[in-house]
Amino acid sequence: MILTVTLNVALDVTYEVPELTPCATHRVTSVARRAGGKGINVARVLHQLGHETVASGYVGGVVGEEVLADLDAAGLPHRLVGHPGRSSRQSVTVVDRGCGDATVLNEPGPELTDDDWTRFLATYDELAPAASCVVLSGSLPPGLPTDAYALLCTRTPGATVVDSAGPALLAAARAGADVLLPNLAELRETTGRLDPIEGALALLDAGGKAVVVSMGAEGLLAITRDGCWRVPAVSRLSGNPTGAGDALAAAIGATTELPWPDRLRAALAWSAAAVPVPLAGEVDVATLHRVADAALVDELEDCDAAATDR
Amino acid sequence: MILTVTLNVALDVTYEVPELTPCATHRVTSVARRAGGKGINVARVLHQLGHETVASGYVGGVVGEEVLADLDAAGLPHRLVGHPGRSSRQSVTVVDRGCGDATVLNEPGPELTDDDWTRFLATYDELAPAASCVVLSGSLPPGLPTDAYALLCTRTPGATVVDSAGPALLAAARAGADVLLPNLAELRETTGRLDPIEGALALLDAGGKAVVVSMGAEGLLAITRDGCWRVPAVSRLSGNPTGAGDALAAAIGATTELPWPDRLRAALAWSAAAVPVPLAGEVDVATLHRVADAALVDELEDCDAAATDR
Repeated sequence: MILTVTLNVALDVTYEVPELTPCATHRVTSVARRAGGKGINVARVLHQLGHETVASGYVGGVVGEEVLADLDAAGLPHRLVGHPGRSSRQSVTVVDRGCGDATVLNEPGPELTDDDWTRFLATYDELAPAASCVVLSGSLPPGLPTDAYALLCTRTPGATVVDSAGPALLAAARAGADVLLPNLAELRETTGRLDPIEGALALLDAGGKAVVVSMGAEGLLAITRDGCWRVPAVSRLSGNPTGAGDALAAAIGATTELPWPDRLRAALAWSAAAVPVPLAGEVDVATLHRVADAALVDELEDCDAAATDR
Repeated sequence: MILTVTLNVALDVTYEVPELTPCATHRVTSVARRAGGKGINVARVLHQLGHETVASGYVGGVVGEEVLADLDAAGLPHRLVGHPGRSSRQSVTVVDRGCGDATVLNEPGPELTDDDWTRFLATYDELAPAASCVVLSGSLPPGLPTDAYALLCTRTPGATVVDSAGPALLAAARAGADVLLPNLAELRETTGRLDPIEGALALLDAGGKAVVVSMGAEGLLAITRDGCWRVPAVSRLSGNPTGAGDALAAAIGATTELPWPDRLRAALAWSAAAVPVPLAGEVDVATLHRVADAALVDELEDCDAAATDR
């Protein structure tokens, strides 16, 4: 079983408008509402592709009830801890035919307490021993310690994958997380290094065992204590890239038994397969197979010695 | 009692962001969620100013439950009819310090059925006989007849005030509504006349008894079968103008016993008093009194003969 952790669960509301114009009133032409937050989307992709998964995190209030109802309707197993009296957040994505990317409005999560954290840890300690891998994704809600992911990594018998940024990602590296998943901007923000290989090596120095960097159209980079690999993006895909990072995290979580070149190929294929699908948390299986077949993984021999010395 | 009708009830979600940039991701700095839709805001203003009121309309689903809970928390009397299986809509307003007006995303309402309409009419027929005035506000949800407001006007023993636009407003005029409340753009859209006096006279010709036109910074115009009056805006106010039209409708609904110059003065004062308040459905009482004291209503003698002849 792969356990996903979404401490900042959201109800994802997606609006389509012909064109988003600031300071104007818009008639929304299509509305989709579903349970979201990065780890929820990771669990959805795993579930779609037949991997056993459980989604953990927090929910509360009327928004939380809608999140739970949606997860039940999707048949996605979950163990979400309640924060009574405070409602889960909503995230609004405005899809505008005029811009390739979407306009996103992320509400802050509800303020959590020490008691909320203690209750989550109790649930986590029940779930984690049964997980081959735990995928920890997204921002931390207000009130949780910066090293929340780091602490969870130290309580995890199986593998850990952390998709976050900044102090939370750095703390997870220091706690010895197995795989860290920043994109290029997050890696720079976290390490201060402009070069992605240098940035990834800095996270290995901190204590992380492997770093997979998503570089958009430049493809993916894996800098690990077992060696370094790169896979270029196969072709430009049009669609909604919002869920690509979560599909990538799902691929890394589902391939802990495979060698790195195969994991990197899967990561590229799953993330590319999320783009043609309108909502985050789903992949197009035909695209997945096409990209996996075409992907060419190169070993970065110059980097190998530097990384395996860490 | 003043009855308000909101056929397209919404949960109004208001976000503050430092600056709204299309195609970018935003951290929302403040979130407010409350029951909305134009007639709900009319009822809120009436309730705040001590007038007995009941809010009628439709609600459904989890969003409808949040609407009901919010109305209960506000102590606002309501008789909302359920549409089981379909959720009420949400409306998102993004307040951006960079633009005086707000960016609004209005979801379409749920599709209503003939059965929903029959159930609403039964509730309406219980409520309307006890109302000194009924205020009908906003767009019609999909599935209701274009002449829904017109039909409600013909079933109303007391006064009727209709704040809408296009075919729904024209049908209400034809049904003999007592007061029609278009703004300048809505009046042009409804009648095809560029001149506001000519547009208002066209609505009297159709069958309406009075038309109050809001002309923004130009103030208000009342074209009625008892004569014509104009009141210029008192001063430019800064704030959120979203609820000003609903406060105006509340003033017209609350002053059925007064002569037109007094109604027009109240309409100007209540609508101006909505601007300094951040959320729709509330007025600033000090501003209300200040504007009412300063407002100067002029009779438009050239127009009187034309209007009273209708």
